[in-house]
Amino acid sequence: MRDKILALLKDKEGYVSGEDLSSSLKISRQALWKHIQELKEEGYDIEAVPHLGYQLSGAPDRLFPSEVSHGLNTKFIGNKIHYFESIDSTMNAAAQLGLQGAGEGALILAESQAKGRGRLGRTWFSPKHKGIYFSLILRPKILPSQAPVLTLLAAVSICEAIKETTGLGPEIKWPNDILLGNKKLGGILTELSAETDKVNFVVIGAGLNINNPKKELISGSTSLKEHKKENINRIQLLQPILRRIEDNYLIFNKKGSATIIERWREHSVTLGRRVRVYCQKEHVEGEALDIDSDGGLLVRKDSGLLQKVMSGDVVHCR
Amino acid sequence: MRDKILALLKDKEGYVSGEDLSSSLKISRQALWKHIQELKEEGYDIEAVPHLGYQLSGAPDRLFPSEVSHGLNTKFIGNKIHYFESIDSTMNAAAQLGLQGAGEGALILAESQAKGRGRLGRTWFSPKHKGIYFSLILRPKILPSQAPVLTLLAAVSICEAIKETTGLGPEIKWPNDILLGNKKLGGILTELSAETDKVNFVVIGAGLNINNPKKELISGSTSLKEHKKENINRIQLLQPILRRIEDNYLIFNKKGSATIIERWREHSVTLGRRVRVYCQKEHVEGEALDIDSDGGLLVRKDSGLLQKVMSGDVVHCR
Repeated sequence: MRDKILALLKDKEGYVSGEDLSSSLKISRQALWKHIQELKEEGYDIEAVPHLGYQLSGAPDRLFPSEVSHGLNTKFIGNKIHYFESIDSTMNAAAQLGLQGAGEGALILAESQAKGRGRLGRTWFSPKHKGIYFSLILRPKILPSQAPVLTLLAAVSICEAIKETTGLGPEIKWPNDILLGNKKLGGILTELSAETDKVNFVVIGAGLNINNPKKELISGSTSLKEHKKENINRIQLLQPILRRIEDNYLIFNKKGSATIIERWREHSVTLGRRVRVYCQKEHVEGEALDIDSDGGLLVRKDSGLLQKVMSGDVVHCR
Repeated sequence: MRDKILALLKDKEGYVSGEDLSSSLKISRQALWKHIQELKEEGYDIEAVPHLGYQLSGAPDRLFPSEVSHGLNTKFIGNKIHYFESIDSTMNAAAQLGLQGAGEGALILAESQAKGRGRLGRTWFSPKHKGIYFSLILRPKILPSQAPVLTLLAAVSICEAIKETTGLGPEIKWPNDILLGNKKLGGILTELSAETDKVNFVVIGAGLNINNPKKELISGSTSLKEHKKENINRIQLLQPILRRIEDNYLIFNKKGSATIIERWREHSVTLGRRVRVYCQKEHVEGEALDIDSDGGLLVRKDSGLLQKVMSGDVVHCR
């Protein structure tokens, strides 16, 4: 009912009479009034004027599923949204849902994470209402070894959406960091549940610093707010992110990784640089030459030897 | 209390007096009598003789955790056993438990599976009390690409344990079939939960036909009973399987895959044969030359070209 009232108020500019609303929804005027009060408590700005009716003039700064879905216009990404005011980690919830058979495109959204995490179990600081923290379930027909491309795909999609929405030019540090002005704006984590030769499902997670004020940012990280000097509407950024992911994912399914890799190169801050890549106990140093079709980084060592690294921590040397 | 009574009865050959039992356990004679009745209902053969006491002369044909643990003598495999009279699939239960943080060595056992499965979602017929169906949680510090070796490791361990227990000589058809007399005795399924460069946990599952009578076996499959012409005590086979898995796993963790691969070669029915390997939409035909250190099958095609296959369906051509 809540979502239906909001949809009716959004569909019409100006006031909607209480009579029209209650007859459309087949509820009493008194029941309608009660629902309106609840929406106001959630943070919706709804004006009530006698003889004119109700008008929606503002939505709260929340990633409510009804708000994220409204005008999303995707085919399957976000067709089912699981929303949490707070959660340990959207990755954990997504893995559980994936095992229970959640379909492709299921989205797990949280306003805050107590144990948000990045690669190799590292912490991702996820303060309430400040960022975008989501995990997305996909069921691509790929081998486990092809999964790293999905990290690149998500990074490309997020960069494209940020550019489209804010005009800023984020860059990607291989494999999973989103940088803005050389500081960390966000990260991507890809986890999979698989047989040795078949992916059951993939969870792509992202954590992005959006409206964190400068003084609440840890060293080396940044937020969109720090650059734009104003709050960003998180829904107006999340929607294009989801649309871009869907577009790029459909391209990937149809044509393989080539287009994704090409788009990735355009946003890369790593290629062409001298890098040191720490990978488990070893490290490789040389020039970051290119990305292979499976997402691996090709490093040309000083000996001239080319080495491929599938994942690791990159230090840009100079 | 149930397990304590059984332990006391097992520790002593001959009769244990009711008085000794009830005082050891600090329960009344009447309470003891009630527990004994319950054990009898579970299928334990307990004789009660006035003035002598109780004697355990037979255990039911069940994989009760207390029976599996008794004398198991492993360091961590099976240190925690989750037992189900029936379940959809031990793989699903194990994946859930793995996500919830179940430790290395946690074992999921079932007397029957409604949806037992093999590679690529194929069905594994799991009739009640006839087979051994288990899934085991491991947390190896390996890359996802190294996981196929664990399938080989489980296959080797199962073959060794069957040989030790029954004197029969099972063979392994790459990658995951256990054969006896060229018919399918069992299969192994390895699933993983992983980041792109780190395994969170691995589930190794096995389904083995043990006491299936010949007429209940589907075409192309066999059971230990068919070969031995008698019922096999499933616990006396499961225990050495778990011990062998632990031994081989400790070797793998310490020294890598070389020893496992070498042991695998000894049991292989695939190497040296002409094979056709169906892998996704393609197939490769040639001589199965060897196994690579990551568990891949090396096939020498008629052109002389060597091709490595990571997983697939093998047909032995002649």
